[in-house]
Amino acid sequence: MILTVTCNPAIDVTYRVDSLVPGEMHRVREVTERAGGKGVNVARVLHLLGEQTLATGLADVGFADAVEELGVPAAFVTALPSLRRTLVVHTDRETTSLWEPGAVVEEPAEAALKLERHVQLLLTGADGLVVAGSLPPGFAPDLPTRLAELAIDEDVPVVLDLDDEPLRVAADGGAAVLMPNRDELARLVAAEGDLDVVAAARELSGRSRASVVATLGVDGMVAVTKDGSWHAVAEQVAGNPTGAGDAAAAAVIRGLVRSEPWPEVLADAVALSAAAVVAPVAGEVDLAAYHQWRGTIEVRPIDSLIVQQVPR
Amino acid sequence: MILTVTCNPAIDVTYRVDSLVPGEMHRVREVTERAGGKGVNVARVLHLLGEQTLATGLADVGFADAVEELGVPAAFVTALPSLRRTLVVHTDRETTSLWEPGAVVEEPAEAALKLERHVQLLLTGADGLVVAGSLPPGFAPDLPTRLAELAIDEDVPVVLDLDDEPLRVAADGGAAVLMPNRDELARLVAAEGDLDVVAAARELSGRSRASVVATLGVDGMVAVTKDGSWHAVAEQVAGNPTGAGDAAAAAVIRGLVRSEPWPEVLADAVALSAAAVVAPVAGEVDLAAYHQWRGTIEVRPIDSLIVQQVPR
Repeated sequence: MILTVTCNPAIDVTYRVDSLVPGEMHRVREVTERAGGKGVNVARVLHLLGEQTLATGLADVGFADAVEELGVPAAFVTALPSLRRTLVVHTDRETTSLWEPGAVVEEPAEAALKLERHVQLLLTGADGLVVAGSLPPGFAPDLPTRLAELAIDEDVPVVLDLDDEPLRVAADGGAAVLMPNRDELARLVAAEGDLDVVAAARELSGRSRASVVATLGVDGMVAVTKDGSWHAVAEQVAGNPTGAGDAAAAAVIRGLVRSEPWPEVLADAVALSAAAVVAPVAGEVDLAAYHQWRGTIEVRPIDSLIVQQVPR
Repeated sequence: MILTVTCNPAIDVTYRVDSLVPGEMHRVREVTERAGGKGVNVARVLHLLGEQTLATGLADVGFADAVEELGVPAAFVTALPSLRRTLVVHTDRETTSLWEPGAVVEEPAEAALKLERHVQLLLTGADGLVVAGSLPPGFAPDLPTRLAELAIDEDVPVVLDLDDEPLRVAADGGAAVLMPNRDELARLVAAEGDLDVVAAARELSGRSRASVVATLGVDGMVAVTKDGSWHAVAEQVAGNPTGAGDAAAAAVIRGLVRSEPWPEVLADAVALSAAAVVAPVAGEVDLAAYHQWRGTIEVRPIDSLIVQQVPR
C-alpha cells in the first residue's frame, strides 16, 4: 500500500462561466465540487492505476467521506476547523484559479504531533510514502521532512512534492526523493538567468542525499540519481496542466516501490503526466492515452540541460 | 414584526485579492462568509434600524444559525439540499461577482406548499411582509405572489422585490408594492429607447393595483401611488451598490407599516440606500450617514421623468 499525506487539503470547486470579466457580475452555469489537495490527487492517480493506496493528512470532520467518494480509501486526522477551497473558473478561452489560504489551527504543533503518530502507525502497512502540497498557516516547515524520516527509518521509499520553506528544509537532508519544478529548483540553488537543470539537481541531490526529479512542464523531466542522470519529454499536448505534477509523483513512487530502473520510472512519470494534461477533469488521468504514450517516450542520459528561467 | 422571505438564499463569500487577471492563478488574501440573499439583507437592515424582524424562506439545515449570527431572528423551512454561494472578488480597482445557481430541489411544488403554510402561520404575528430575490431552479414563478396574497388577505402590507418571471406574475395583479429597477421596469412595460419612468410605473401600478417604487441607481427613486407621484435623489456617493436595493425595501416596508406619507417613505428609502452604498460591507448600512442625510433629501412631485436606458 502506498500512503499519501496531504497536510493542507482542499475542496476543489470548479465554476463554468461564459466569460470572466473583472468588474462584472457573472452567472455560474455549472458548479462541481470534489476533494482535492496534492496528496489526495496522487492517491487518486494511484487508485486509477490499480495500486493499493491510502490517503491521510490533516482535515476537517467530513473530508475523508469526500475523498472516499473518489474511490480512494482515506484515514485523516481531524485537526482543521474547516477546509480551504481552491476555486477554478473555466471559460472556453482560459482557466482562472483562486486559492484560499488554509484554515487557522489553534495548536499547530499538537496537530502536527498527532499526524506524526498517525503516519507512524499507518507506515507499518506501507510500501511507499508521498507527502505532497503545502502546510496550513502556522505549521512548522519541517513537518514533511519529519514524516519522511519516519518512513526512511522503516526503509520505506519517500517522494516529497513540496514548495517554499518545507522544500528548503527537506533539501537540507531528508534522504527523500524531491520533485521540484523549474522555479523551485532555481530558488533552491540560488540560480539566476539560464538554469542548468542537471547541475542544479546534482547540487540539490548532494545536499538532500537522494535522487531529484525536476519537473519542467513542456520541457519534460530530469532525473538526477546515484545511477546517472536522464531527460525525457512527451510530445506537447493541449489541456489542463493542473494535476500533471501529482500524476508524476504517483508514477515515481510506484516505480520506487517496484524498484524499477530510473529510466523506466522517468518515462512512466512523463507519460502519466501528459495523460493528466489531456484528461478533461483536473486530478484525473486518461489511462488510454497513458498506455498509448508509455512506449513512445525516449529517455536520454544527459550531463547538462540548459533551460531559460521564466521571469517572475 | 416585519417578516422577510428569501426563497433562494445564499452564503455570501467575499475574497480579497491583489488583482484579478483571467487565466492566472491567484492567492486569496482574505476570505469572509456570511448568510445572504435579498430577504436576509432586508431583515438585517431592519434589525440595524431597531425594528422587530424575522427572516424566513427556504434553506438547508444550517442556514438559520448563519442568519442568527447576523443578529437577525430566523425561522427557515428546511427544503434545500445545500446553499448556493455568491462569490464577490474584491481588488482595490474593481469588484467581480460570480453567482452560483440555486440547489436543485426534488419536489419544488411540495417545498413551495410547505413555505406557504409556514408563512401563513408567521403572518399572524406580522405587521409587514417583504418577499425578495429569486427562486431556486424549478419553482413556479407565482410563489412570491401567492405569499403576498396571504398577507394582503390579512391586511398586512407587502413589498415585493423581484426580477424576471416572478416579477411579471406579480405585476399582473398581486396588490403588493413592487420595486423594479430601471431595466425591469422597461421590460415590464415593453419600453424601448428612452424611458418615462413615471408613465411606465403608472402603467405597472394600474396593472398590479398597488404603488410602484422604481429604483434608478444614481438617478434616485420614483414612487407612483394613488396619492401622487414623487421623485427623490441623494447626492452621489462612492461605494458598493450591492445591497442598496435591499436597504430601500427595508425603508419602504417600515414606512408602510407606520402608515407614513409617501414622500417621507421615499426620502427614507433614498437616504437608507445611499447609507448602504457607503457602508464598507455589502448588506450593511452606515447609520450615522443615514441620519445625517435623512433630512437633506428633497422629494419633488413629478408627472414625468425621462431616463436613458442602459444598452443591454
